Amino acid sequence: MAARQLHLGAFMRPTTIHTGAWRYPGAFPDANFNFAHLKRFAQTLERGKFDAFFMADHLALLNMPMEALKRSHTVTSFDPLTLLPALAAVTERIGLIATASTTFNDPYHIARKFASLDHLSGGRAGWNIVTTSNPDAALNFGQTEQMEHGERYRRGREFFDVVTGLWDSWADDAFTRDVESGLFFDPAKLHVLDHKGEFFQVRGPLNVARPVQGWPVIVQAGASEAGRQLAAETAEVIFAATPTLEDGRSFYRDVKTRMAALGRDPSHLKILPGCFVVIGETEEDARARRAKLDSLVYYESGVASLSIALGHDASGFDPDGPLPEIPPSNASKSSRERVIALAEREKLTVRQLAQRLGGYPGSAMVGTAESIADQMQQWLEAEACDGFNIMFSHVPDGLDDFVEKVVPALQRRGIFRREYEGTTLRENLGLPRPANRFFPA
Amino acid sequence: MAARQLHLGAFMRPTTIHTGAWRYPGAFPDANFNFAHLKRFAQTLERGKFDAFFMADHLALLNMPMEALKRSHTVTSFDPLTLLPALAAVTERIGLIATASTTFNDPYHIARKFASLDHLSGGRAGWNIVTTSNPDAALNFGQTEQMEHGERYRRGREFFDVVTGLWDSWADDAFTRDVESGLFFDPAKLHVLDHKGEFFQVRGPLNVARPVQGWPVIVQAGASEAGRQLAAETAEVIFAATPTLEDGRSFYRDVKTRMAALGRDPSHLKILPGCFVVIGETEEDARARRAKLDSLVYYESGVASLSIALGHDASGFDPDGPLPEIPPSNASKSSRERVIALAEREKLTVRQLAQRLGGYPGSAMVGTAESIADQMQQWLEAEACDGFNIMFSHVPDGLDDFVEKVVPALQRRGIFRREYEGTTLRENLGLPRPANRFFPA
Repeated sequence: MAARQLHLGAFMRPTTIHTGAWRYPGAFPDANFNFAHLKRFAQTLERGKFDAFFMADHLALLNMPMEALKRSHTVTSFDPLTLLPALAAVTERIGLIATASTTFNDPYHIARKFASLDHLSGGRAGWNIVTTSNPDAALNFGQTEQMEHGERYRRGREFFDVVTGLWDSWADDAFTRDVESGLFFDPAKLHVLDHKGEFFQVRGPLNVARPVQGWPVIVQAGASEAGRQLAAETAEVIFAATPTLEDGRSFYRDVKTRMAALGRDPSHLKILPGCFVVIGETEEDARARRAKLDSLVYYESGVASLSIALGHDASGFDPDGPLPEIPPSNASKSSRERVIALAEREKLTVRQLAQRLGGYPGSAMVGTAESIADQMQQWLEAEACDGFNIMFSHVPDGLDDFVEKVVPALQRRGIFRREYEGTTLRENLGLPRPANRFFPA
Repeated sequence: MAARQLHLGAFMRPTTIHTGAWRYPGAFPDANFNFAHLKRFAQTLERGKFDAFFMADHLALLNMPMEALKRSHTVTSFDPLTLLPALAAVTERIGLIATASTTFNDPYHIARKFASLDHLSGGRAGWNIVTTSNPDAALNFGQTEQMEHGERYRRGREFFDVVTGLWDSWADDAFTRDVESGLFFDPAKLHVLDHKGEFFQVRGPLNVARPVQGWPVIVQAGASEAGRQLAAETAEVIFAATPTLEDGRSFYRDVKTRMAALGRDPSHLKILPGCFVVIGETEEDARARRAKLDSLVYYESGVASLSIALGHDASGFDPDGPLPEIPPSNASKSSRERVIALAEREKLTVRQLAQRLGGYPGSAMVGTAESIADQMQQWLEAEACDGFNIMFSHVPDGLDDFVEKVVPALQRRGIFRREYEGTTLRENLGLPRPANRFFPA
């Protein structure tokens, strides 16, 4: 039997997530707003047989102090649903996953845009469904009071039902386009949704034919109890945040068990933890690159992150000394313990620790292409994941190195494709095409 | 002094407006949903040095009886703001104008999408601002009561102010991206809009840099008194509906006089009437092609249009006889007289007349490439327009013929470019780049 295969998403935001990355030697500081660069990245990822280019979204700018904001390249970016159609036109196989919020959108627009993207790309669209809790975003949409968590989730679930209902407006064979008789479509194969719910009233039908994939691939990032359950019910890809292999196994087991209990085939959901990757010629070189990258982070931002993690003001600490003893506080004990353990394990000064937290605080794989491929194989075989959402340390080099070095190492291990399996994102992920609820086959 | 130059938009809906066009011999019946075809059209138009690919929009499907709807190819199409980014990636110079409604959208999303499209395309975006009165569209956005006309226009005007204000969020040189100091942008060059109006509260700033063109080109279709005044104040292109040269001159003079009275340079608005074009080898061949095209229209739809135009039920008329005498009615006298005159002038049977009205009822240029070029020159020299929004009779042939035959005829007359003047839509239209209201030069 063939080995289980890894799936790889490239998590672009739109480029890198590390706040110092734009200053790294050789980086493209203008990558966020330069389509030529984004095209290059997408085409390189396609050469590397990535399943998908995955773009985050944020609906507001002013979500951190100006002193940090003015140093960050991660807060301004193109609208994902405007960028991805352009990338669709210059690629052929790679999937295109856009984040779109159910909190500040209309389901009719979202259904139409993803259906259009799916047609334009020949079946390569995916929708990362998020709810938006950022109060700064609310202010851009005329809402001064933030929607509470439960309401946001109920709205999100109804939004999903409306969008998928609109995608099912047309049977797959509704458009006959019979030149002889003059019938462009068959009205018996058109369904009027007529949705009336708690949040939405949407008549339909959608004015776009059923998507090539039936539905674009449904992506979520649910980590909470409610989020896991919703994902088990509806998601086809999960962007997981599981920092350790043990966390990964536990999350994986939990969600796949929930799926089985619901009667869903657990292989019809791919769990892809986020994974920040720093690649070096040697292990030491990789660690040096990461240190260089962290050193480009604005120290004051890092100290703010460190203070939050410790539950203690760190601004008075000696930046170049070790982390001092800290009196007990009300801060999350696990967050504090994790930071203290990190400082000890890597022998970091206060400055280095602060810049690590301010750069990218999540879990990372740092090493040679071979050792990173080994770690990935270990996660896969331990059933801690079905693949990863890769966050590149910097662009273009971090991305190019992954495609040129890590991908071949994974291929040599027999756990990553050498050619795309199909033409649609679903086919490449090994996901079934959803039946049309109104026109069963 | 060089002759005044024509500007040409291609009005795509997303392909043709004539309801029988998809059945014409050699047509692509699936053009609406086939990106390969749309790419071919855009690239051909760019070879023809068209100023812009201009896409209509409609936010509902069920806006005509099913008997007509099921025969129509003009009601289903891609979302324009999803299609045009894809076309941006496969073209270099042609402008890309998308219609977007101020009635069923959020200004923050619209500002962001057009700004993104303008960056992606290197400054080729245009926004055709419309308000939506279609009650079927309202039902797709949870509104059971139609907004009244005045309210819709006030909302549209405020929407425009918010969107252009958001585009001015950043000074043109705000993004310094200084790798050495680590400053990604200069906060002194960022403006927080903080709009609070009758319809919208939008804090801002936009999370996209100022568009390449400052603002995407502002397009309108105002014909009413209020619409003309708004266009004189804010529009840079008008999609006019002036069927005769005299109508064209009168409209042109009116709007340009309003502009001068407001202190705007009248050359900073281009008036482009819609123009349906049927090209033949000879005059007779062109008329035969139009007759063939009309003959592909569903007769019952045509009769319904004819009945409305006459103010009299035409369903009992002999389809193959001449238009009978009709008793007086309350119908618009001018509409009735126009139809009667048309039937007499072209000696049309009831069937031919009905199919003409059901196919494309507006004004048309029907003839050889040379005679069409003559008519266009006459309109230009009479100051009845600054160019045209061309509606092709059918695709691909009607479009290809225009580019291969009419464009060279216009170029030989010295009234149409042989090469694009610039790289942005504004440069090609001869429009100034708007100053930033918050950061004057």
